[in-house]
Amino acid sequence: MSEIKKGVQILDCTLRDGGYYTNWDFDKQLVQAYLNACNKLPIDWIEIGYRSPAKESYLGQYFYLPEYLIRDTKSRTTKKIALILNEKDIDPQTVRALLGDCIGHVDMIRMAVNPIRMDQAIELAKRVKEMGFLVAFNVMYMSTWDQIEGFYEKLSQLNGLIDYFYLVDSYGGVYPAEVTKAVEKVRSKLDVSIGFHGHNNLELGLINTLTAIEAGADVVDATFTGMGRGAGNLKTELLLTSLSSRHGLSVDFNALGNVVGAFERLQKEYGWGTNLPYMVSGANSLPQKEVMEWVTKRFYSVNSIIQALNNQSEGIEDNLKLSLFNSKKHYKTALIVGGGDSVKQHEEAILHWVKKQDELCIIHASSKNANTFIELSKDQFFCLVGNEGHRLENQVHGSFGFVTQCVLPPYPRKMGTYIPATLEKKSAELKEITFTNRVKDSHTVLALQTALELQAQSIYVIGYDGYSGDAVSQNEIELSTENEALFFEFVKVGTQLSSLTPTRYKGLKPDSVYSRI
Amino acid sequence: MSEIKKGVQILDCTLRDGGYYTNWDFDKQLVQAYLNACNKLPIDWIEIGYRSPAKESYLGQYFYLPEYLIRDTKSRTTKKIALILNEKDIDPQTVRALLGDCIGHVDMIRMAVNPIRMDQAIELAKRVKEMGFLVAFNVMYMSTWDQIEGFYEKLSQLNGLIDYFYLVDSYGGVYPAEVTKAVEKVRSKLDVSIGFHGHNNLELGLINTLTAIEAGADVVDATFTGMGRGAGNLKTELLLTSLSSRHGLSVDFNALGNVVGAFERLQKEYGWGTNLPYMVSGANSLPQKEVMEWVTKRFYSVNSIIQALNNQSEGIEDNLKLSLFNSKKHYKTALIVGGGDSVKQHEEAILHWVKKQDELCIIHASSKNANTFIELSKDQFFCLVGNEGHRLENQVHGSFGFVTQCVLPPYPRKMGTYIPATLEKKSAELKEITFTNRVKDSHTVLALQTALELQAQSIYVIGYDGYSGDAVSQNEIELSTENEALFFEFVKVGTQLSSLTPTRYKGLKPDSVYSRI
Repeated sequence: MSEIKKGVQILDCTLRDGGYYTNWDFDKQLVQAYLNACNKLPIDWIEIGYRSPAKESYLGQYFYLPEYLIRDTKSRTTKKIALILNEKDIDPQTVRALLGDCIGHVDMIRMAVNPIRMDQAIELAKRVKEMGFLVAFNVMYMSTWDQIEGFYEKLSQLNGLIDYFYLVDSYGGVYPAEVTKAVEKVRSKLDVSIGFHGHNNLELGLINTLTAIEAGADVVDATFTGMGRGAGNLKTELLLTSLSSRHGLSVDFNALGNVVGAFERLQKEYGWGTNLPYMVSGANSLPQKEVMEWVTKRFYSVNSIIQALNNQSEGIEDNLKLSLFNSKKHYKTALIVGGGDSVKQHEEAILHWVKKQDELCIIHASSKNANTFIELSKDQFFCLVGNEGHRLENQVHGSFGFVTQCVLPPYPRKMGTYIPATLEKKSAELKEITFTNRVKDSHTVLALQTALELQAQSIYVIGYDGYSGDAVSQNEIELSTENEALFFEFVKVGTQLSSLTPTRYKGLKPDSVYSRI
Repeated sequence: MSEIKKGVQILDCTLRDGGYYTNWDFDKQLVQAYLNACNKLPIDWIEIGYRSPAKESYLGQYFYLPEYLIRDTKSRTTKKIALILNEKDIDPQTVRALLGDCIGHVDMIRMAVNPIRMDQAIELAKRVKEMGFLVAFNVMYMSTWDQIEGFYEKLSQLNGLIDYFYLVDSYGGVYPAEVTKAVEKVRSKLDVSIGFHGHNNLELGLINTLTAIEAGADVVDATFTGMGRGAGNLKTELLLTSLSSRHGLSVDFNALGNVVGAFERLQKEYGWGTNLPYMVSGANSLPQKEVMEWVTKRFYSVNSIIQALNNQSEGIEDNLKLSLFNSKKHYKTALIVGGGDSVKQHEEAILHWVKKQDELCIIHASSKNANTFIELSKDQFFCLVGNEGHRLENQVHGSFGFVTQCVLPPYPRKMGTYIPATLEKKSAELKEITFTNRVKDSHTVLALQTALELQAQSIYVIGYDGYSGDAVSQNEIELSTENEALFFEFVKVGTQLSSLTPTRYKGLKPDSVYSRI
C-alpha cells in the first residue's frame, strides 16, 4: 500500500445505495446531517439517488429525485453531485425528458450496466453525453467478465464516449489479486478514468478498494456504515480512517463520528452488513437480492438459506419432488394454529373446545405451539416451509406419532426442503396455491391452502395475535401486512376465518373460544 | 490466493477470546452447541480458555478452567484442545502446580507473550515443555516488532523449544503486505510451525489470514461471529466459507449456520465487532482495551472517543488545562438532575418546588433534561463529561444564558474536553474526587462532587429512575451498579441523598416532590 496515487477521488453513495433498505425515503434531518458531514470530509462526489421511469410499486423520493429535491440538495452541498440510471430500464428515446431538468444541477450521470448489454448501454450513453453530463459506466458482475465473449474487446468503443468506467464487484466475492488483474485489463483497452465499487460480503471491501487504487483506479465508492443492498459496501469511515493513518489524508473525525452515529441508529432498525448467507452468496457469485429478501423478511434461518444457496450453486432448484397432497378425507372444521403466545395462554379452553368437535382437523401453520396438541387424537397437518422441519423436531423432541401429514409448498421450492427423516413418508407438496399470487411459501398461505384442500366448511384460527404498534420491526410489519392481505384474499374465494383468540388482524372475524365451550 | 497450502490447520478460540465480553462465563447450552458444531466442521483445534492464578475481580469458569470442566469438554469434543496463559501473570516456579492436572487432557499450552518479554517467556516455555505439552508462543503487537531491538535475532533461541510461533496483530492495524514480510522474516530465523491471529478492526482479518497462509503459515485462528476483545477476530464462518469456495474445503453449512446463529444472539446483547473507534485505534496502533471500555460501558459518543484517541496518538493526555472549580457561593440545598424520563413527567411539580426554595442550586448530571429549567433564575451547574457539551448544545439550541458554570472532571481527562465555545469562560475542572476512587469521569461522580464543593446541606435527586429488570442491556446494568455504589460511598462521607421522583436505586432515600409542595 506504499504508493497510493495522489488525487484519487472518493464518491459517497450512501443515499443511493442505502435506499435499498429504506425504499429510498430518508428523514430530512438525517439527510441534513449527511450533507453537513460530507461538506467537512475529503469526499469529492455524492451520489444521491436514481432517476427512473415510474415503477409499479411504491419507491421513495431518492429513487425518482424530483427536480426540487436535487436543487435543494445542491444548495446545501459543496460536493459534486451524481445520480444513477438503471440502463436496462431506460429507453434512450426518453432520456432527454428524463434528465432534462438535471442540467446545471447534476454533474455526472452514472449508468448501472449489465456486462451483456454493453451495446444498448453505449446507445444510451451517447444520448446522455449529448446533454452535457459527465458519463460513468458502472459495469456490474466483474467476476463474470472473463466468461463473456468479447467483453474486453468491446471496451475500446467507450473511448471518447464515457468519462468513468467503474468495475463493480456485484457479488462481493472478488479477491485483491483479481481486482489488480481486472483493472490492468480494463486500463489496457480504455483511456478513461477508472472507478471501483466494492461490496463487503467477504469483508474484502477495503482491501479490494485499496488494491484498485494501487492498480490505478481514479475514483472509488463507499457508503457510511456500509449501508447498501444486502451485505453492503465498503464503509466510508473505514476508507477515510485507513487513508488518514496510512497516507495522511486529512479527516475531520468529529464530522465523521456524527454522520456514522446517525446511520448506525438506522442500521439498528434495518440491520445491513454481512452475515453467513451473504458470505456464501458472495463467495459463490450468487445474487444477494434474494438472500436479502430471505434474511430480512421471510425469517428463514441461516441454515435454510445456506441450503437454498447450495442448491442454486449446484443448479438444483429443489432437492426433492414429493407426491402431491391429496387427502381423501375431508373435514367439517379446520383449526389453523399460528405461532402466537395466545395459544399457550388459552390452552385449556382451546383443548376443551377441540375435543368437543367432530370431524375437526388441526393445521399447524407454525410448529411453535405443536406440543400443546401432542396428546390429542385428532388429525393434524403441519406446514413445513424452509426451516420449519427443524423447529418441529425441536418442539416435539422427535415424538411424531401425532403428525397426520406434512404439507410443503408447490415444487420447485427455492428454499430447499428439510423434512425430518421419520416424516418423509408422511410428507406431500401442494399442487398449487389457488387463492392468491402473492406468495407461495409462507406459513399462512400453506395453512389456508391446506384448509381449502381439506374442504373444511368452517375455519377457525388461533395464535394469530398480530403485532402491536410498539417496538415492532420493519420485518414484522411487512409479514403482518402480508398475512392481512392473504386473509382478505382468502375470504373472497373461500370461507370466513374466525379467530378464537385475541387478534389484531382485521381480516379475521373476532370470536372467542370461551363463548363456545 | 492460488496456492493455499494443503493441510493448514484451523484453531477456533471463540470461548477463550469471546470471554472478554461475557467475563468468561458461557451458558451450558451454548457451549454444547459450540462443541457439537466444531465436531462437524473442519476445525483442528479449539482453545477453550485461560489458566490463571487468582485475580482480584470476578472472572468466570473459562478464565480458570477447573479440571472438571476440561475433562467434561474433552469428553464432548473430537478436536485437539488448547488453553492459553498470560505469560506476564505466571511465575515459572508455579507452573507445574498450575498445569499439572491438564496433563493428558490438554494438547497444547499457548502463551500470550509481550515481545519485550521474550527472555521471561523462554524461561516459562521450558517449564511447560518439560511437562509434555505442545507449546505455542502467541507474540503480540506484531506491528511493533521492527522497532524492538534484537527482536528477530532472538527468535533462533526458540528452535527446539516451542512448537508454534504465532504472529498476533493485536491492534488489528496490519496490512497484507506487512503480514507477508513478517511471516518471511520469522521463517528465516525459526524452524517451527507458524501461526497467525488476526484482529478485525480494519476488516482485514480474512485477507491477512489468507495472506499469512500463502506466505507459509501452518495454523490460523478465528472465532465464530468474530467474538473477541474489542473489534474482535477473523470470523470462523468467513474463513470456512472462503476456503470452501476457493479451495474446496468441505464445510457442513448446517452445522456452521447453527453455531453462528447461537453466537449472533449473544452478539445482539454484547455488540462486538468493529466500529469507528476500533478502526481508529487499529489504524493508529492504539490499545483497544480502553476503547472497548469506553464504547461498551461509558456511553461515550464515537466523537469523544475519536477525540481521545487522537489525543493519545499525538501523545496529548488532554487538550485543555482549565482553572479549578472553586465556588465562593455556597448553597443550602442542591438538586441533582439525572437524565431519566421522570423529570419531564413531574415537571410542573418540580418547578413549583424549586421556585419555593431559597439558596438552592441545580446540578445537571446529564444535560438531557436541561430545557425544563431554562427559564429558571437559579444558579445552575452542568457536568460535562466526554460528549456532554455537544448534547447540551443540542438540548438548549445555544441559549446558554441560564448556565452558571460548567464542571469538568479532574485533569488530565482521557476522553478529551469538549466545551461549547461560548461557555469556555464559564468552565472549570474539579481538583479531585474526594469520596471515591471508583471512577473520575462519570456524570454521577461529577454531580456528587460538585454538591460537596458547593457545601450543600441537603441534596435532592430527580431523574435517577434506574433500570427495570426487563430488556436492560449489560451496559445499563453496569452503569446502574456503578451509580448505586457511588451513592452508597457518597452517603458514608457526605449527606443523605433523597429522590423526589420515583427511583429504583436503593442508595437513594425515597421521597416525593408532591409531599413537599
